[in-house]
Amino acid sequence: MLKELRRQVYEANMRLPALHLVIFTWGNASGIDRAKGQFVIKPSGVPYEQLTADDLVVVDMDGKVAHGKKNPSSDTPTHAALYRRFQDIGGIVHTHSRWATIWAQAGRPIPAYGTTHADYFHGEVPCVRTLTPQEVQDGYELASGAVIADYFEQQGINPAHVPAALLAHHGPFAWGKDALEAVYHAGVLEEVAMMAFHTELLQHAPMSAMPAHILDKHFERKHGAHAYYGQKA
Amino acid sequence: MLKELRRQVYEANMRLPALHLVIFTWGNASGIDRAKGQFVIKPSGVPYEQLTADDLVVVDMDGKVAHGKKNPSSDTPTHAALYRRFQDIGGIVHTHSRWATIWAQAGRPIPAYGTTHADYFHGEVPCVRTLTPQEVQDGYELASGAVIADYFEQQGINPAHVPAALLAHHGPFAWGKDALEAVYHAGVLEEVAMMAFHTELLQHAPMSAMPAHILDKHFERKHGAHAYYGQKA
Amino acid sequence: MLKELRRQVYEANMRLPALHLVIFTWGNASGIDRAKGQFVIKPSGVPYEQLTADDLVVVDMDGKVAHGKKNPSSDTPTHAALYRRFQDIGGIVHTHSRWATIWAQAGRPIPAYGTTHADYFHGEVPCVRTLTPQEVQDGYELASGAVIADYFEQQGINPAHVPAALLAHHGPFAWGKDALEAVYHAGVLEEVAMMAFHTELLQHAPMSAMPAHILDKHFERKHGAHAYYGQKA
Amino acid sequence: MLKELRRQVYEANMRLPALHLVIFTWGNASGIDRAKGQFVIKPSGVPYEQLTADDLVVVDMDGKVAHGKKNPSSDTPTHAALYRRFQDIGGIVHTHSRWATIWAQAGRPIPAYGTTHADYFHGEVPCVRTLTPQEVQDGYELASGAVIADYFEQQGINPAHVPAALLAHHGPFAWGKDALEAVYHAGVLEEVAMMAFHTELLQHAPMSAMPAHILDKHFERKHGAHAYYGQKA
Repeated sequence: MLKELRRQVYEANMRLPALHLVIFTWGNASGIDRAKGQFVIKPSGVPYEQLTADDLVVVDMDGKVAHGKKNPSSDTPTHAALYRRFQDIGGIVHTHSRWATIWAQAGRPIPAYGTTHADYFHGEVPCVRTLTPQEVQDGYELASGAVIADYFEQQGINPAHVPAALLAHHGPFAWGKDALEAVYHAGVLEEVAMMAFHTELLQHAPMSAMPAHILDKHFERKHGAHAYYGQKA
Repeated sequence: MLKELRRQVYEANMRLPALHLVIFTWGNASGIDRAKGQFVIKPSGVPYEQLTADDLVVVDMDGKVAHGKKNPSSDTPTHAALYRRFQDIGGIVHTHSRWATIWAQAGRPIPAYGTTHADYFHGEVPCVRTLTPQEVQDGYELASGAVIADYFEQQGINPAHVPAALLAHHGPFAWGKDALEAVYHAGVLEEVAMMAFHTELLQHAPMSAMPAHILDKHFERKHGAHAYYGQKA
Repeated sequence: MLKELRRQVYEANMRLPALHLVIFTWGNASGIDRAKGQFVIKPSGVPYEQLTADDLVVVDMDGKVAHGKKNPSSDTPTHAALYRRFQDIGGIVHTHSRWATIWAQAGRPIPAYGTTHADYFHGEVPCVRTLTPQEVQDGYELASGAVIADYFEQQGINPAHVPAALLAHHGPFAWGKDALEAVYHAGVLEEVAMMAFHTELLQHAPMSAMPAHILDKHFERKHGAHAYYGQKA
Repeated sequence: MLKELRRQVYEANMRLPALHLVIFTWGNASGIDRAKGQFVIKPSGVPYEQLTADDLVVVDMDGKVAHGKKNPSSDTPTHAALYRRFQDIGGIVHTHSRWATIWAQAGRPIPAYGTTHADYFHGEVPCVRTLTPQEVQDGYELASGAVIADYFEQQGINPAHVPAALLAHHGPFAWGKDALEAVYHAGVLEEVAMMAFHTELLQHAPMSAMPAHILDKHFERKHGAHAYYGQKA
């Protein structure tokens, strides 16, 4: 069971750079075996080009290492907190993917501007508050998971209906029924974040369009009886 | 005949990810055999990496399955509505390509800002209104096609002269004489949408340019009698 | 001589899609043999994937075909006008590359904002006026070359010092001592246009930066005596 | 020792185009042997596609050539000045990478907007003032290094804690314990610059989101008891 889980978590991790969600060492994916109370996660600081399935680390629900020679991701306590609080999820992904991180850095949730968003997220993707100095001191990564779970609980959001959140000034976390679906949701989130950003920038007062005589000329160079673009049939 | 059509529709579908117009399962292309009153369309929810020509579904003019084991695209009724109303088109493409979708999400038509646009679209690319709650309930995908066709009819726009439209809060549909031309128009639309977006953002009051002495220095490092950049000839 | 020129113009054309300056059929490169009074240019409407060296067309200084079975680029009269007026240039490139076209569509010259620009262009890259309806009717492509040359002459700009111009509502033309240098200048222009666009958008009043305790925490996770990111050495 | 250094500096240089930080000849990397008082640097004006390890030039602490047949980078005096002033650095990289250059062209430091930034730079990345006409005349490249080092000294910034700076109207310099780490910091800087740019553009007053009935419809096409997207399991 853990062997198959390890294989899947490895594949999930390797999809992150392939989907352009991660460069350098900036991300991690994990998957959980609920029956055993253990999850498999990427080791800390290992570049994706060098990562092998054997490097993955098995940890318990407190994030303590159960098997493996490497240190687990420094974000392991965040994963552990989310697995404890969101009982139905089976995989988690953290990235610094560009567009989702931009929304996080601006401290803003991503509004639902279109059906691409609605196909996966039933409402805005929340941006959860910055940790306090005390929380950072007491256990930064653990608190990062707690503020996400608290927010979903307080707002009555079902994590299966909104399978991602942003941490203010940091970046996105996404989850799913397993590690591969978590990667998929992280990929959708990035696309939705890119399009939402530019949707906001589009102003409602357009510039004047091009002059009609240039419009007509170019259309007619290619279309109709007097077209002269291209080769004779 | 259907065999050749199936081959062409398959090729049209596979060009969508190759042209970066579609990721995951976010698009579909179809092509019609007007004599038979049937069209060939992508199956629903099948990732492009796994799609084979045999997966394509043949449907009638009401979008009912005529041949094929898969469910057709959930957007099939939209395609059917457009084929019924636009009698001269032979292929249709729907995508969530980034820049066209951004305009759709902002609820705005794409103005004709340049000759790249005019070479293909004789005027703005319309953005058609959001469906009403009643329309969504009565047949969402069918109504999506109807509002596009209604708009063209009411505005007196020839669909051969403006071979694409945006659905507000959703994304683009493009069409052509066959499925391959529909893909081509979808690709042109994306490029035109990207450039129109940034054309609007360019303000008319530029910043002050760089100081003249830096401008001169850099030009003269590479050009003229005292240039010292590069290797001696 | 023409054989070597043909080879070079073919290579110049093929670099345009390789440098992401052209998609579909949206561009053309030419190179001139001043002694013969002929230039070699891409045929009209032939996609780059299908282009062979034999497809290139040899034309005289009026743009009339001297050798070749294909129609020359529909922009041939523009090239001819530039070769006649700019006596020292040996190659010309026209594209609809994204960022240069965006400036053209906004009807704005590209200011010299940095040394990347100054290394190649000794001052702003001009945006030349839209043609009048009469000019479009009398010979659209010829007039396109004439307005560029007129502008350089009136402003006293040396075309060797500013080897490119934008046509308002259309796109860029670039030139050089031969077709390959013209391609190089077209590539530089695109990069400079992209950076100038975003330079203008950067406002002078930044948002407040992230809180200091998050800044410190993340730096210290990776640096100094208490770092805990990564593997033990 | 110099042989291994040469190999490493060559690898560092070749990573610049691979990481999309450099096109054409627009960058250079160097690495120093402190014991010998010499550093290895890219030759001037040699395109990366043609660069071999043998082309690298060995220079002394004044930037004078010690070994090698090529001219060293025209930016060599800037590297020399930084090595003399920043005693603990072992490698330097200069690029015209897009997003870092955009901040330099706008004359602005890059604020620390998120943890991606904080993981590498302990505060903003400075943008150092434009040189005066006198400085340009007296030794442009040397003065470019001096103004960077002066700024760090005056502001009390540890170059190990902020391993990069922008030169106004020019572009970025980055450094590290060796040439490879300098490249890594140049890559991080580019990513951080891209995200900081867009963070600033995000305004705090979002548009109205999409209508609820469209949001619900799309989510329910794919999720729950009445979903009809995709294939039957």
